[in-house]
Amino acid sequence: MKIRSMISVLLLTGATAAGAASDWQALPDAAPSPANNPTTGAKVFLGKMLYHDPRLSASGTVACASCHNVMAGGEDNRAGSVGIRGQVGGRSAPTVWNSAFNSVQFWDGRADSLEAQAKGPVTNPIEMGMKSWDDAIRVLNQIPGYKPSFKAAFGSEEINQEKVVQAIAAYERTLITPNSPYDRYVKGDKSALTDQQVRGMNTFAEVGCSHCHSGPAFNGPSLPQGQGFYMMFPAQQDADIDAKYKFTADTGRAQVTKNDADKHMFKVPTLRNIALTAPYFHNGAVKTLDEAVRVMAKLQLGKTLDDKQVGDITAFLEALSGEFPRQDMPRLPGTPGHTFPFE
Amino acid sequence: MKIRSMISVLLLTGATAAGAASDWQALPDAAPSPANNPTTGAKVFLGKMLYHDPRLSASGTVACASCHNVMAGGEDNRAGSVGIRGQVGGRSAPTVWNSAFNSVQFWDGRADSLEAQAKGPVTNPIEMGMKSWDDAIRVLNQIPGYKPSFKAAFGSEEINQEKVVQAIAAYERTLITPNSPYDRYVKGDKSALTDQQVRGMNTFAEVGCSHCHSGPAFNGPSLPQGQGFYMMFPAQQDADIDAKYKFTADTGRAQVTKNDADKHMFKVPTLRNIALTAPYFHNGAVKTLDEAVRVMAKLQLGKTLDDKQVGDITAFLEALSGEFPRQDMPRLPGTPGHTFPFE
Repeated sequence: MKIRSMISVLLLTGATAAGAASDWQALPDAAPSPANNPTTGAKVFLGKMLYHDPRLSASGTVACASCHNVMAGGEDNRAGSVGIRGQVGGRSAPTVWNSAFNSVQFWDGRADSLEAQAKGPVTNPIEMGMKSWDDAIRVLNQIPGYKPSFKAAFGSEEINQEKVVQAIAAYERTLITPNSPYDRYVKGDKSALTDQQVRGMNTFAEVGCSHCHSGPAFNGPSLPQGQGFYMMFPAQQDADIDAKYKFTADTGRAQVTKNDADKHMFKVPTLRNIALTAPYFHNGAVKTLDEAVRVMAKLQLGKTLDDKQVGDITAFLEALSGEFPRQDMPRLPGTPGHTFPFE
Repeated sequence: MKIRSMISVLLLTGATAAGAASDWQALPDAAPSPANNPTTGAKVFLGKMLYHDPRLSASGTVACASCHNVMAGGEDNRAGSVGIRGQVGGRSAPTVWNSAFNSVQFWDGRADSLEAQAKGPVTNPIEMGMKSWDDAIRVLNQIPGYKPSFKAAFGSEEINQEKVVQAIAAYERTLITPNSPYDRYVKGDKSALTDQQVRGMNTFAEVGCSHCHSGPAFNGPSLPQGQGFYMMFPAQQDADIDAKYKFTADTGRAQVTKNDADKHMFKVPTLRNIALTAPYFHNGAVKTLDEAVRVMAKLQLGKTLDDKQVGDITAFLEALSGEFPRQDMPRLPGTPGHTFPFE
């Protein structure tokens, strides 16, 4: 218990500067791309198709978009997502919107880029369930209509895993929701937030939410390397909450690092569009935003907020819902004679 | 067996006029709407959202679009579609593209309109699995963002089953794929088809395919009322085919009419975009288009086609893939605090 408390203090201390109330930042209109995968129109065009193509799953029914629905809040409003054969995952799908601004991906931070993230679900047996990436590439090779798009994006028709995840990541970097009421307020339009939302914004900083939820995406991008995580240790702070929401049933980041100090550590998620992405936390145990605010203040900050504070912070969080760009539906090229499930 | 043969002859005779080779028709650019549900922009806008909204299913994961994917050929390239909890349906999902031109809906024709069809899947326990339409309406009522769209489409914010299915049907009536190579050929562009496709078009008529697959959507719309069905009776024609593809395991329309004469009768499906919608037939037992052509000629027409005929007809059928209209993705309004599965 002592170790956990120390880490908690360390996390909060390390983040104070970034979370100062004077540091409110609007969301950029575009996300930066890595040097080895510059965003291009041809890659985005291809990536949007692949992202929406259920044929990347063994059953032919589960696409990236199935659990990370870009027509909605970028996830599926479920505690656990549903993969092939009706299997239910153990963690709540994070939103794909603004995921380009995450320093790490997955709740346990096991991927350090969108490209690395995209490699996971295709062969996860309870998600898209392909036996191997070779199988996924074999399916794509059987769809002649993909070849010109791979050529346009990467210079050759050859299809491989690296190109697939680069195209998907390039598309995901376009999934940005700027111009929320909060952003307009920060840029100078003082009428963009209600009085309650402005109160909530100040309360959010005062009680300490912004210690971790800092930066333009409210996900602590400037936290020291490897510290963009928070620890769920409710048994210490409030045994009732732990009994109710079972947060500590999942050991989180420790499964990746094999380090006991990382037990129950989870990535600081973005708060952008948080009003659209119930249920909350890694296990989706909390159904409403006001309860999520109350629980978080208690567990992470040791504070019991009153109803007014909770209402104000919740109203502020609702002002983080941005503008979703209009998107054409992709046209998925035909599968001549090839049918699913894939065998 | 005698009764079946008589019905078969009756079907073929009744359809001869409509299927004459001189009667090639291009697909209209728009589908007619019924007097009680005129197509309007506001209804289509709402219907597109509802069609893509997985929250109409009990699990929150299955939308109309899940099995009838408009980004692809309007279905799911599976023998049986996958509903909630991974359940697999018994018949292959028909395409939604050009379904506005079907005189009846479902393989067994149990719905006489798109509106009537849309009532089925929401409460089908192995499809979207809502216990009742009341539950579906309750979910929609918990999504405040839907109310303005219902008001714009129907004059009041009230949400009910009739409005939901009318909006979905109005959207489906916009899902038309004109300007296929075949259409351009029929309209006078003689270069739109290859020589092989023109040969296939003539063979298609000569061997008798067009007896049932007549009209602009090749689905026999002008067949006498109640006769837009074909009978699967392979045991009579070819016991090997029956053993291989199990077509007669499903009694088809007889389940609706409780009439033995309708045993193994199924709706004549459209052939529009057929190259994109493998696998084929009501049970999806045939994976490739050329095999579907061969099987159909044998079972329905008693003819054994040679490879050239099969190749030519298949090439012609590939010329029935039309232009898919560009569509914006719908924005699904948020679910504040409401999560799935629905209970």
